[in-house]
Amino acid sequence: MTSKPVRIGMIGYQFMGKAHSHAYRDLPFYFDNPLKPELKVIAGRNEEAVKEAQEKMGWESYETDWRKVVERDDIDVIDIVTPNHTHAEIAIAAAEAGKHIITEKPLALTVEEAEQMLAAVKKNGVKHMICHNYRFAPAVQFAKKLIEQGKLGRIFHYRAHYLQDFIIDPSFPLVWRLKKEVSGSGALGDIGAHSIDLARFLIGEFTEIVATMETFIKERPIGEMTGGLSAKGDSTKMGEVTVDDAVAFLARFENGALGTFEATRFANGNRNKNKFEINGEKGSVRWDMENMNNLELYLASDEEGEQGFRLINCTEEVHPYVGAYWPAGHIIGYEHTFIHLIDEFFRGIAEDYQPAPNFEDGVQNQKLLDAIEQSAEERRWIKL
Amino acid sequence: MTSKPVRIGMIGYQFMGKAHSHAYRDLPFYFDNPLKPELKVIAGRNEEAVKEAQEKMGWESYETDWRKVVERDDIDVIDIVTPNHTHAEIAIAAAEAGKHIITEKPLALTVEEAEQMLAAVKKNGVKHMICHNYRFAPAVQFAKKLIEQGKLGRIFHYRAHYLQDFIIDPSFPLVWRLKKEVSGSGALGDIGAHSIDLARFLIGEFTEIVATMETFIKERPIGEMTGGLSAKGDSTKMGEVTVDDAVAFLARFENGALGTFEATRFANGNRNKNKFEINGEKGSVRWDMENMNNLELYLASDEEGEQGFRLINCTEEVHPYVGAYWPAGHIIGYEHTFIHLIDEFFRGIAEDYQPAPNFEDGVQNQKLLDAIEQSAEERRWIKL
Amino acid sequence: MTSKPVRIGMIGYQFMGKAHSHAYRDLPFYFDNPLKPELKVIAGRNEEAVKEAQEKMGWESYETDWRKVVERDDIDVIDIVTPNHTHAEIAIAAAEAGKHIITEKPLALTVEEAEQMLAAVKKNGVKHMICHNYRFAPAVQFAKKLIEQGKLGRIFHYRAHYLQDFIIDPSFPLVWRLKKEVSGSGALGDIGAHSIDLARFLIGEFTEIVATMETFIKERPIGEMTGGLSAKGDSTKMGEVTVDDAVAFLARFENGALGTFEATRFANGNRNKNKFEINGEKGSVRWDMENMNNLELYLASDEEGEQGFRLINCTEEVHPYVGAYWPAGHIIGYEHTFIHLIDEFFRGIAEDYQPAPNFEDGVQNQKLLDAIEQSAEERRWIKL
Amino acid sequence: MTSKPVRIGMIGYQFMGKAHSHAYRDLPFYFDNPLKPELKVIAGRNEEAVKEAQEKMGWESYETDWRKVVERDDIDVIDIVTPNHTHAEIAIAAAEAGKHIITEKPLALTVEEAEQMLAAVKKNGVKHMICHNYRFAPAVQFAKKLIEQGKLGRIFHYRAHYLQDFIIDPSFPLVWRLKKEVSGSGALGDIGAHSIDLARFLIGEFTEIVATMETFIKERPIGEMTGGLSAKGDSTKMGEVTVDDAVAFLARFENGALGTFEATRFANGNRNKNKFEINGEKGSVRWDMENMNNLELYLASDEEGEQGFRLINCTEEVHPYVGAYWPAGHIIGYEHTFIHLIDEFFRGIAEDYQPAPNFEDGVQNQKLLDAIEQSAEERRWIKL
Repeated sequence: MTSKPVRIGMIGYQFMGKAHSHAYRDLPFYFDNPLKPELKVIAGRNEEAVKEAQEKMGWESYETDWRKVVERDDIDVIDIVTPNHTHAEIAIAAAEAGKHIITEKPLALTVEEAEQMLAAVKKNGVKHMICHNYRFAPAVQFAKKLIEQGKLGRIFHYRAHYLQDFIIDPSFPLVWRLKKEVSGSGALGDIGAHSIDLARFLIGEFTEIVATMETFIKERPIGEMTGGLSAKGDSTKMGEVTVDDAVAFLARFENGALGTFEATRFANGNRNKNKFEINGEKGSVRWDMENMNNLELYLASDEEGEQGFRLINCTEEVHPYVGAYWPAGHIIGYEHTFIHLIDEFFRGIAEDYQPAPNFEDGVQNQKLLDAIEQSAEERRWIKL
Repeated sequence: MTSKPVRIGMIGYQFMGKAHSHAYRDLPFYFDNPLKPELKVIAGRNEEAVKEAQEKMGWESYETDWRKVVERDDIDVIDIVTPNHTHAEIAIAAAEAGKHIITEKPLALTVEEAEQMLAAVKKNGVKHMICHNYRFAPAVQFAKKLIEQGKLGRIFHYRAHYLQDFIIDPSFPLVWRLKKEVSGSGALGDIGAHSIDLARFLIGEFTEIVATMETFIKERPIGEMTGGLSAKGDSTKMGEVTVDDAVAFLARFENGALGTFEATRFANGNRNKNKFEINGEKGSVRWDMENMNNLELYLASDEEGEQGFRLINCTEEVHPYVGAYWPAGHIIGYEHTFIHLIDEFFRGIAEDYQPAPNFEDGVQNQKLLDAIEQSAEERRWIKL
Repeated sequence: MTSKPVRIGMIGYQFMGKAHSHAYRDLPFYFDNPLKPELKVIAGRNEEAVKEAQEKMGWESYETDWRKVVERDDIDVIDIVTPNHTHAEIAIAAAEAGKHIITEKPLALTVEEAEQMLAAVKKNGVKHMICHNYRFAPAVQFAKKLIEQGKLGRIFHYRAHYLQDFIIDPSFPLVWRLKKEVSGSGALGDIGAHSIDLARFLIGEFTEIVATMETFIKERPIGEMTGGLSAKGDSTKMGEVTVDDAVAFLARFENGALGTFEATRFANGNRNKNKFEINGEKGSVRWDMENMNNLELYLASDEEGEQGFRLINCTEEVHPYVGAYWPAGHIIGYEHTFIHLIDEFFRGIAEDYQPAPNFEDGVQNQKLLDAIEQSAEERRWIKL
Repeated sequence: MTSKPVRIGMIGYQFMGKAHSHAYRDLPFYFDNPLKPELKVIAGRNEEAVKEAQEKMGWESYETDWRKVVERDDIDVIDIVTPNHTHAEIAIAAAEAGKHIITEKPLALTVEEAEQMLAAVKKNGVKHMICHNYRFAPAVQFAKKLIEQGKLGRIFHYRAHYLQDFIIDPSFPLVWRLKKEVSGSGALGDIGAHSIDLARFLIGEFTEIVATMETFIKERPIGEMTGGLSAKGDSTKMGEVTVDDAVAFLARFENGALGTFEATRFANGNRNKNKFEINGEKGSVRWDMENMNNLELYLASDEEGEQGFRLINCTEEVHPYVGAYWPAGHIIGYEHTFIHLIDEFFRGIAEDYQPAPNFEDGVQNQKLLDAIEQSAEERRWIKL
């Protein structure tokens, strides 16, 4: 198949910039996508850092002003991997410039911002995507397929938690991720948003929630991220943590299911435990990102005595996406979820359909995030 | 050691009657307890059934009227294993008769009843115990010890669920466990009560909760239990299910921890998944009744790179209770938790201290159960 | 059901004496066996110790000379739980006295001895049993049933290991288990014999083997067992270890399967890891004593993409033996395997059939043990 | 860091060609290697297929005659990913042409061939590497480090199996992997060779072995591989399978350890179960390729009662290689092992040291493969 070029301009270059850059590079190697990305330009305010990123990750050029990227005629797609508070301004400018847009989650800091972004992409008729990459783990895609086929029947329960432990140490500094004005929220928007997206993807819309939030450590030394989830701080200056360290909420879904959710950065021993279990009338599924290639499936229709959760290594040709890689039993990892997401994004552009998850999903997700914060503050159930 | 006899009268003879009877029989075989039970009399209204139980389980005699048992002079302990709505009347009568009392959980149908029971045992100076047997799994006892030693440090999270699946089939009949007037509540009082007790035992008192409850199947054929968790029904007559099939709640604890709880009989593939995870500043523990001999322990102080949850098979001499059984690696089961509970009960009687969990715990637990129902109904947080 | 009494005389009273005694006590509580044991007499040379055992374990009387037990008219069954070198003499005397016999494994120290024992029980027409208790784990019984039903199809592989770690410390003393003249062999006869029995039970007879053995620590302080697998020694006197610390062998089976086996007391972290995996044309099973209630089952006929090992908690009514205990998901333990074995033994006596495993199995097992030692010594394959 | 270019010519383009090509592409993205690969030319006999591979995998050009690649002046490295019987001829020619060489395993069909290859690379002073990629899983590298630090102490046991199930179906065709003249051996050389390499890497050299081999299905329809481990056949023409379906062997090591090994393609439910356990005086480790990011570590020095296998997710900065990727808990996959291997290969070239595993390892490995075949045939122990 001959692929047509699609020219990418990326705004931002850290953890997510690396994940997206790699996905663009790997996509044509593994998949027969109608589009083939050209890594035209990467933007960041710190010239030294962005230049290093440009060279390391294989971009043709760099800019220190994101507006120049958005203004370029030779760019088809704007990829936004900057801190959360900048998503709206960049996305709206990109939409106005007629670029297709892919952005990291959460979409924005508030529902209002998110809706402005959605309006902008709709008005300008561009494709848009939000990077809830966990949807694209083959085991999750396979779970979705099983649910759509009715193999679980009526859904009773959705049970999810996303546990991390990287800020338990009080000397972990006050980085952008812990400041409300930059990140919007803490564990909630960073990882809870992923759990919300997975639930919406797998079993549908929420109808109401009740939530509680907690900030266990209220002051930390001023500091900054140094890559990935690492950071360094200056222990002589302290600042106030303005986001949640942990959030938990109960939920009801349109399909009648009952949900329990938790997201925290204070669960010692859990580095990236993004986990869910769905219980239905005919069966159940369980998934855990730390063993992301596996899906546990229980089918009540199995013969009596032979029933039990099956540990399925979702690396067979029949499992979504993985036929592109290696023989069964040869696992893939975190980074591959981004390749699948980009594959879907480009197909949407090439075949002129709106891929998902997109800004509509981002708005819905943001409504949940806002409702959860409101519920925690007002100590009551909030309808969506 | 020479043990003194203690004479037992048991009211009830089904699932829990069997578990308690077995524990009495096994106690002197494995443990050096100062008391040695004599299985004097077992009571039940169905003469044929109670007689069969008496013979099978090794009781000296039987009665069809529980009052006769309570009135007997040669009985030291009344053991109550009847459906929940009868606990109060029997226990109060037994207390008035000066008997030590051990009863199944939940203590009663309401806080009011529970408090009357507590008042009665206090007034009469008898020992009392409530059968939250899961406390007595060696791995749970060991977790308690680790927490007391400060090995987890400040506690941030308590995360528990108790999942069963035995009533998903709509043809499962309307047995006493599904009638509010007999059982008080459904999944909440039956299994959620155990999760509440474990949390109280391990990390202390709750301060407030918010809950939601659901009855997925609202009508069922009239029927009755046939032993264990099996039942038979008459599909021509239907009746209303008046208890919860599932309950979920968020909680706050006195120590500042955040809790998430769920109890359900609609989690396909989970036969008896009584599970908790506790995350603290210095470490975490995880436990699951389906593999009850194991405790997973994470210690943040382990050398960098060598950190990970340890799968501890709690069958070593150093682990509580199990030194009485077999060499390391030779596991014990569900029934042994009752032996340990009885061991504690008898020590309390012999050494004249009030063992735990007891009616005080029953009252606290019942306060939680009532608050949860109220919270679910009024859709708001309830303080304890 | 009315059970007839069967009068037991037990020779020996340590680890296995405890396991058997408990099984006799529990059998009538859980099972409707045609026979009901009476614990008449227990024998041991150390009067103080045997008297304590008699009281603790509920035997009517004790003897310090085993011959007196065998000679008593009011004894129907002789149960032999003494060190291995005494099995033959006691069993033959018991057979001559017309007693049914149950003995611990291995049957004897040599094939010659074992065959004399078999001849004696046959000549005297008594029932006989050897305590390969692991056969009686419900999950193992269920695996057997699946294999008999052809659910695994043609068997290709049998893979087993039995790993312990209780003598890694060089200060662990030279107890009877480490002396060839008393125990016959080390890891081989103690735990390897169990793996051999499980293989014979599940997939049939061996045709040839090649083995290697090792004694990692060749001298130890003189000492003795103090119960279970604990011991104490005198570090000033050393003696030579005359048995194997570890053994490994390859095997061929009559059905064409290929086997790999290993038994060792030097596998750190493995307290009692008795594990097997069987791979067949249509499926596979895996079992591990440390989680003995579980069976992992793979069925190649499962739908494509939905294939995976099922984790079956063998606690359902349909699983062998466990219907007698608790509802699904409430696990049993090590000691229950002995109850099932005794249940089978008594049924054989009551219904006049020869139960299994019996002395025939003991002889076959001993042939394997001898062949393995010979193979290790002569460094060659041995046909059976 | 500025990297110098290194020009690659690859012979072959199937499963392993894809794995290597991807590794070259990813290396500079993730690692600061002194060399940066240029994908100059890829060779294969089937022009259409090699052209497609060239385009898909990003090579500058293609050839249908491997000799032309070896002869080119602008090539620094020859990468051999062809079927096993061609390795020797190509490698020797490449060595004569002064190229550095990296080749798939096994090195050759016989020890003689392997030694000729080793002689050639030595004579010509080129760097050489053999692709035992599993060494380069971070968890394996970390295990190696722990062993070198003495954390396991004296090693008693090495226990490994490599289980696959892709040819159980008798209609799976007679592809090159099942023909002795092309592949040398079956499960032995294909996957058993990996287990041998891991053992040598982790605990050192073998001293003797005894083996058995089996071909369960002796005739299959003629056919060919279609990518990965898939194949298609023509059921009307049958041919003889001339390699082993399964192999098992016992081993002794220079350090006194006892080894058990098994490799099979007939273990239903095991897609790629490459697993080992090492037991030492002070601790044990376990690893399984299907969950390759995890290492299980047992340390006997852990406090009594707190001992247990730790499940370490080897995704921390302290774990070898993974600091280059993502934050802790974000797993990598099969393909990354090749990136690490190439990283080591290029460092060897750039810094002028001989990296490992190399042709010396290939020769040692081949000696084992030959000894195992000889042992199976002659039914005796073979010393190395």
